Amino acid sequence: MTTPARYDVLGIGNAIVDVIAPVEDAFLDAHRITHASMTLIDEERASRLYDVFPPASETSGGSAANTIAGCANLGAKTAYFGKIADDELGETFAHDLRAAGASFFTRPLKNGPKTARCLIAVTPDAQRSMSTYLGASSLFGPSDLDAEVIRDAAITYMEGYLFDQDDAKAAFVQAAEIAVSAGRQTALTLSDLFCVERHRDAFLHLVRGHIDILFANEDEILALYETASFDDALSQVRADCRFAAITRGAKGSVLLCKDEVVTVAAEPVEHVVDTTGAGDLYAAGVLYGLSRGLPLAECGRIGSVAAAEIISHYGARAQTPLRDLAELDAQG
Amino acid sequence: MTTPARYDVLGIGNAIVDVIAPVEDAFLDAHRITHASMTLIDEERASRLYDVFPPASETSGGSAANTIAGCANLGAKTAYFGKIADDELGETFAHDLRAAGASFFTRPLKNGPKTARCLIAVTPDAQRSMSTYLGASSLFGPSDLDAEVIRDAAITYMEGYLFDQDDAKAAFVQAAEIAVSAGRQTALTLSDLFCVERHRDAFLHLVRGHIDILFANEDEILALYETASFDDALSQVRADCRFAAITRGAKGSVLLCKDEVVTVAAEPVEHVVDTTGAGDLYAAGVLYGLSRGLPLAECGRIGSVAAAEIISHYGARAQTPLRDLAELDAQG
Repeated sequence: MTTPARYDVLGIGNAIVDVIAPVEDAFLDAHRITHASMTLIDEERASRLYDVFPPASETSGGSAANTIAGCANLGAKTAYFGKIADDELGETFAHDLRAAGASFFTRPLKNGPKTARCLIAVTPDAQRSMSTYLGASSLFGPSDLDAEVIRDAAITYMEGYLFDQDDAKAAFVQAAEIAVSAGRQTALTLSDLFCVERHRDAFLHLVRGHIDILFANEDEILALYETASFDDALSQVRADCRFAAITRGAKGSVLLCKDEVVTVAAEPVEHVVDTTGAGDLYAAGVLYGLSRGLPLAECGRIGSVAAAEIISHYGARAQTPLRDLAELDAQG
Repeated sequence: MTTPARYDVLGIGNAIVDVIAPVEDAFLDAHRITHASMTLIDEERASRLYDVFPPASETSGGSAANTIAGCANLGAKTAYFGKIADDELGETFAHDLRAAGASFFTRPLKNGPKTARCLIAVTPDAQRSMSTYLGASSLFGPSDLDAEVIRDAAITYMEGYLFDQDDAKAAFVQAAEIAVSAGRQTALTLSDLFCVERHRDAFLHLVRGHIDILFANEDEILALYETASFDDALSQVRADCRFAAITRGAKGSVLLCKDEVVTVAAEPVEHVVDTTGAGDLYAAGVLYGLSRGLPLAECGRIGSVAAAEIISHYGARAQTPLRDLAELDAQG
């Protein structure tokens, strides 16, 4: 038996501020932005792209950070590791995470690159196409881990995007080892189709031996197992992971563990504005449910409610209390 | 006859980035924030208030800047003067204004206070309660005026908020003089009820001799003339100004000139989220209409359409092309 955990969920990821703007489809073509995915860009490209970017609004982002903010909003005890710079956007990022109720520990970077920003172009189909300048977040590494916090978290949740930087990848592996040694659970989100293509072997290795809880969308799980069959992918992930939750956009999601498979419908949304953070908030709801030992169907329902809130407006942080939307207080 | 103007509208105001968060009513009481108005705060109070502020999003703001961004969005040729600092939020402000299509000239401040920010708490009644730290914007003064641009603008539009700082007030008066000497029109928005209380005599002096076009809401115009009768206020403003547009929230607006009074209904809005910028965008629509020589009723209609867009989401900058919403292209 492990001791009770001080945190329900610890998140580790790239600490990013989103710069979000609605655009026409032609904008993506004109500026060579890949539709509906995440592309890493350098500082010069970020600067040139911002110069031609439409009027935007800034909200804190970062995949795992969005999930942690969502978990905290739902009422979970949460913490986060990720690298910001000692600048205004870094202050914004830290404020928004702490104000959501999460503990945020990582020391800001001084005299280095600026806080990461992600230029998000939202097309009329509500898809988000992301161009990410990692800046300070790329300097996250093993020395930023606080082993005591990891040992004190029931679930350590990490984003696949961390594998895009060697130091962050090393931190990921080390954090997973600490969590496993402490008898805690590890969780991974595959993050993005192209991220899976870049790191398939490493992700398969993790999924097959080191990760208890896996999050992915349909494209990502098909890419991971290099199959065109969703059923085939589900069989494989079920053999590999203790628990998995696979999202399928408007078709809802599938949650699986060794002896149960549950299909959950998506929550109806009147007007889908911006899908940024849909997967992150779905994961938040599921992780919250798991932390409370709720049935799979209920975990999926809370995830769907959180995702529905986030896609009904611009930005990946909740504008309405998620506990109320999910009617958690009514359940006691 | 004056020469044709290079700019339809030049705006002058406090260059501010908004930090917007939904709050419960109790938040205003707990932190002594005055409901539905603008309060100036110092840096220390801004820092303490931000510490307790909920997760927020940042969008460029500033009353006259919102109006100019709206005018530009509608298709007018616009320019703006206002003081930002040489920092990240300043860069954001400049980007958003230029990306909207406005020319923005003012030199950023170096080695001084940070770019102004306005902490906006939006209550469930959709009213915005603003706590403004003026920072760099308070150092705007006569030396920031470019007389050539003023002479080249058909209308110079200024916010009453400028009267809260002596240097900005001096710049206001000087800009008005330059515009009048060049045979151009001057416009003023009364900005805020408490702003009128602070500067009633100065505003009356302006309205009675130096301002061609006046914008105000019902509370502000009643406060200006110290009357409880809306009809009385309308008679007085009609005697004082060549043109006035008075907004009454959901009751619509009244537009007046010497030989015409027109009442315009508010555009229906399905769900009012955040009234930040409602007056600013109404002014944008009216100024656009005036710049095109449209009838008063049409000016008011475009203003109402722009205001309706802005109150349907958080933030005071348009998320949907206003020309399309106002069906301007269909009119040729």
